[in-house]
Amino acid sequence: MGSVKVTFQPENKTIEAQCGETLMDVASRGNIDINNLCGGQGVCGKCRVKILKGKVKFLSKQIGFLEKGEIESGYMLACQTEVRDEDIEVFIPINSRKEEERILTTDQLLNYGAPAPLEKGPDFVKIPYFSPLCQKLYLELSEPTLTDSVSDLDRIYREIRKRLPDFQIQAHFSVLWGLASLLRKNDWKTTATLHLRDLNCPHIRNIEAGNTSAQNYGVAVDVGTTTIVAQLIDLRTGTVIGVEGSLNRQARYGEDVISRMIFACTRGGLQPLTEAVITTINSLVQSISEKARISMEDITCFVASGNTTMTHLLLGLEPCHIRLQPYIPTANRFPPFQTAEIGLKGHSKALLHCMPCVSSYVGGDITAGVLACGMNDQPEVSALIDVGTNGEIVIGNSEWLVCCSASAGPAFEGGGIKCGMRATKGAIEKIILSGKKLEYTVIGESKPRGICGSGLIDLLAELVAEEVIDQRGKFIQFDHPHVRFTNEVAEFVLAEGEETETGEAVVVTEDDIANLIKSKGAILAAMKVLLENFDMSFNDLQHIYVAGGFGAHLDIEKAIFIGLLPDIPKDRIRFIGNSSLAGSRFALLSSHAFAKAEAIAKQMTYFELSVHPEFMNEFVASLFLPHTHMELFPSVEQKLNQRKKVSK
Amino acid sequence: MGSVKVTFQPENKTIEAQCGETLMDVASRGNIDINNLCGGQGVCGKCRVKILKGKVKFLSKQIGFLEKGEIESGYMLACQTEVRDEDIEVFIPINSRKEEERILTTDQLLNYGAPAPLEKGPDFVKIPYFSPLCQKLYLELSEPTLTDSVSDLDRIYREIRKRLPDFQIQAHFSVLWGLASLLRKNDWKTTATLHLRDLNCPHIRNIEAGNTSAQNYGVAVDVGTTTIVAQLIDLRTGTVIGVEGSLNRQARYGEDVISRMIFACTRGGLQPLTEAVITTINSLVQSISEKARISMEDITCFVASGNTTMTHLLLGLEPCHIRLQPYIPTANRFPPFQTAEIGLKGHSKALLHCMPCVSSYVGGDITAGVLACGMNDQPEVSALIDVGTNGEIVIGNSEWLVCCSASAGPAFEGGGIKCGMRATKGAIEKIILSGKKLEYTVIGESKPRGICGSGLIDLLAELVAEEVIDQRGKFIQFDHPHVRFTNEVAEFVLAEGEETETGEAVVVTEDDIANLIKSKGAILAAMKVLLENFDMSFNDLQHIYVAGGFGAHLDIEKAIFIGLLPDIPKDRIRFIGNSSLAGSRFALLSSHAFAKAEAIAKQMTYFELSVHPEFMNEFVASLFLPHTHMELFPSVEQKLNQRKKVSK
Repeated sequence: MGSVKVTFQPENKTIEAQCGETLMDVASRGNIDINNLCGGQGVCGKCRVKILKGKVKFLSKQIGFLEKGEIESGYMLACQTEVRDEDIEVFIPINSRKEEERILTTDQLLNYGAPAPLEKGPDFVKIPYFSPLCQKLYLELSEPTLTDSVSDLDRIYREIRKRLPDFQIQAHFSVLWGLASLLRKNDWKTTATLHLRDLNCPHIRNIEAGNTSAQNYGVAVDVGTTTIVAQLIDLRTGTVIGVEGSLNRQARYGEDVISRMIFACTRGGLQPLTEAVITTINSLVQSISEKARISMEDITCFVASGNTTMTHLLLGLEPCHIRLQPYIPTANRFPPFQTAEIGLKGHSKALLHCMPCVSSYVGGDITAGVLACGMNDQPEVSALIDVGTNGEIVIGNSEWLVCCSASAGPAFEGGGIKCGMRATKGAIEKIILSGKKLEYTVIGESKPRGICGSGLIDLLAELVAEEVIDQRGKFIQFDHPHVRFTNEVAEFVLAEGEETETGEAVVVTEDDIANLIKSKGAILAAMKVLLENFDMSFNDLQHIYVAGGFGAHLDIEKAIFIGLLPDIPKDRIRFIGNSSLAGSRFALLSSHAFAKAEAIAKQMTYFELSVHPEFMNEFVASLFLPHTHMELFPSVEQKLNQRKKVSK
Repeated sequence: MGSVKVTFQPENKTIEAQCGETLMDVASRGNIDINNLCGGQGVCGKCRVKILKGKVKFLSKQIGFLEKGEIESGYMLACQTEVRDEDIEVFIPINSRKEEERILTTDQLLNYGAPAPLEKGPDFVKIPYFSPLCQKLYLELSEPTLTDSVSDLDRIYREIRKRLPDFQIQAHFSVLWGLASLLRKNDWKTTATLHLRDLNCPHIRNIEAGNTSAQNYGVAVDVGTTTIVAQLIDLRTGTVIGVEGSLNRQARYGEDVISRMIFACTRGGLQPLTEAVITTINSLVQSISEKARISMEDITCFVASGNTTMTHLLLGLEPCHIRLQPYIPTANRFPPFQTAEIGLKGHSKALLHCMPCVSSYVGGDITAGVLACGMNDQPEVSALIDVGTNGEIVIGNSEWLVCCSASAGPAFEGGGIKCGMRATKGAIEKIILSGKKLEYTVIGESKPRGICGSGLIDLLAELVAEEVIDQRGKFIQFDHPHVRFTNEVAEFVLAEGEETETGEAVVVTEDDIANLIKSKGAILAAMKVLLENFDMSFNDLQHIYVAGGFGAHLDIEKAIFIGLLPDIPKDRIRFIGNSSLAGSRFALLSSHAFAKAEAIAKQMTYFELSVHPEFMNEFVASLFLPHTHMELFPSVEQKLNQRKKVSK
């Protein structure tokens, strides 16, 4: 059979295809991104397309995901529908697409006020011991004479030693090629690129003519499972030049870590996954560089943080044994990688440093988070919570650190929620409900097309406060104008079809609420169990740092209200945004910070929740808004009682 | 004009040539090696060929080098004769060819009896602190469990730390690729290849399955200007597996260092020179490996020593500024080079270490020599003399070291001597003259075709002792059966045409003797000036180590007799053969020795003879056999007086 043409609308893009290919694969080949939460296994239902013309092969597995009306209208799941032997035309609705997100690119740790004073660098970068992992030193060498006849290389070492007297300096052998004429053609003025990861032994990786010390840039990357964010940083000043995020192109192979591991180890192999993440990073860096009018040749250093699996995939290491007992990664501490050897674009001799991981399930992103929030610098006991699919929690202080993974699930990132989406344009991020009156704000101020994590937190709090739902999360106020039933499941309507981008209503169902409660319950229960293991309670936490990709802001009061966060004074809780990115940046700008990150990773003890007998009980007790045991949430109880008094 | 055919005899090989090409170039293209001492400039006269058929273009520059009879017989210099527009046939006499030499491949330092005891290794390698620059450690790792869940890399570090507890171990990033499955498929049995140049910080460069610790070989190379010698060494035991030498293929671009530097910097560029030496080394190593049935993949480490220019050419560094004031090399201490990056064949991750140089004119070969003879380990003052073109001399002890270059010229290697040749098959190496009776031995026991350095030393001593020549080196005994005149120059006939390989007589002329006297005079004068600068005399030398390529042995008494070596007790003088190769081998087998070599190079002070006012006077005074001032040579004076008494 020959090839047929598949035309996708509304872009009117035609791609050749073979009989038997799924519409998902055809679209992917044509660089059209359709949602692929489950990696093409037909179990998430997020890849609906509509057949406009022609016949296709409809695999019956998908029937459970489509409503009767949809099938009649020609809707199918792209991953469960195959091309036959005739040309077809396919419409991809907006909700089935991955759009550019307003990825969480800011982090609020720029001024985290580290205790030690800066050695140099501008005020706004309050990082102790500003000493970038890669530095360029401009050298004006004295011309050799008969009485000063040291070799060219020794002349360079001698000059550098005036600035770094305590160090044993070495050079990469490639630096010697062409060195003699470079120095003589440039009047002995030259710039040395120094790599400082090994604090005692700086390595010269490159020598350039003249003064290029101002052209030295580094990239900090948060390599997230779903989104990747890169910051381009001027390594001379510490300034952030630009920041961009995009979807991790690995998603076409599975949208969560487990499905990607399975892909790497069984179906497709490691290489496509590594290539996908490298390509994503290169695109981001290229985009930032072009906008900032910076040559990518001037990028000398990368620091990346991701969870353990993401780090392995980035570096081209098989992740297979991470998910199999006894859960062993290839490495937790990674030597610097030559970027040229893994396809990262920048200077040909740039290096990539990955933030150290702790265990199979707690990765460099958490180490970065601890570094960034500074919890291990303080004597007071604090917690770091990364509200995401893994729901990692770290508790400790300058003397001890323990971490665990709550496996919260992706609800707060929009996963498994009917109209859930990431914090991107079109997401409802903030909600206020007063009786029957609903107000909301949408990211990008466009028409809504879904709701993101911060919006979900707001909504839950409002619904409980307004008694639209009870503390179990069940709808009780059926005469509320926004409450209705669809397919016998109660839901709260945030916006009707006329108001929305898609023409479909944006709703949150009772099932969605149940998922959210499970997610938030896992996190709180994990925190409680971890603390009790050390004979502590929530009140012993002097600080809670909340990181995560569920929005650009967090209403802490509402998060406490629903029992996601414990009921301690609000001023002890701080939303720190993308702490993985911030930690990468700190390490990039300070080899001392990088060394500290390695110490943190070594110090952190992983606590396996699933074997802890109390966890299940605590989890069940947390499946309440805010909690089964209201004595844990006195301020919430007080508020609820006040409302009852008022409404009576 | 089209191409013509040039047929070379006696090999009967035909090569196509273009009008205007020299016979030298045509032969070279056909891999026929004709002597090329002066790099084709027509000033050495060693490339005689005979035109058998056809017409050629005869450049008149060569007339001064050919005798009248030669031109009439059709002899011409191959580099000064060009192809015209017709086919020709050319005969290349044996004396115009470069033959395989019996290169000085042995060194007598295997048992130099170092003071410190061996830590391990066989008895015959008496090197302190046997700790090869590259080691393979076989590791049997414990399988991971839930309670022992360190990463794969940390598991390896942990095991290595049991053997090397005081070290900070690192790994090359490439070691991580495929590591997880390699360990699991091989029952956690693995071999780590460790690079130990940095004594405090061993680097893992490779991980192999199972136990490959017995397959670990290194190569020590003496990169000489004319000859290159390589030794293949078992790094587990220290055993020398094989050794071979050959001509340095750079010779076609000029047979001495200066002509090659000129070629690199003007005519042809650096690349052909680098390629030539790399090719030579690869051929040697391949040959040794094949004979020993060893896979070149198991070669993990190379140590090379050569003079400063040779080292630069090997590594692809421009040598241009070495010969121009103020004489600055690119480097004296060289970082390890990745062999794969310069074309050396061995394991893909093997490293090349070059012995450190001292200055433009004293190189790694001399550092290696000092290391090998151990003169810097002793409190007594000693000297090392490398009798070669550069005639380097080192004087000192454990507290101080000075060196200079006597620029002796190539006479003792056969250069500039009419029938001079290297110590190879066909060279007269030993001579005894009693009155009219002459006895000689030839290397390889074949018919003689020339005389090498040790033979020349013997001959000079015998001729003076037998009063065939006077102490100025002039012939005085004209009625001696072996003395005659050719072209009005007196000569001593060692073997008539009938006895020789070539059919030409092997002689030593009065001009040759003058050249030898100049060479030996430069060396002795240099030693004297250096010693007097430190208020010392010859008698203060407790040891003299003599290195060089002039034969497999040295008659020390005769060398003193002619004034090449000072008149001190014979038992203080020792011929140590190829000390450059020995020093390379020591460094290969001991990272401590390599570090010591770096200290030696740093410690050595270069002494510029040419600016010293006394040198010229001392040189002139040395142009006598043994010396103008006989009080410096009391034992020789005594012998000469005894002979006079006897003959009277």
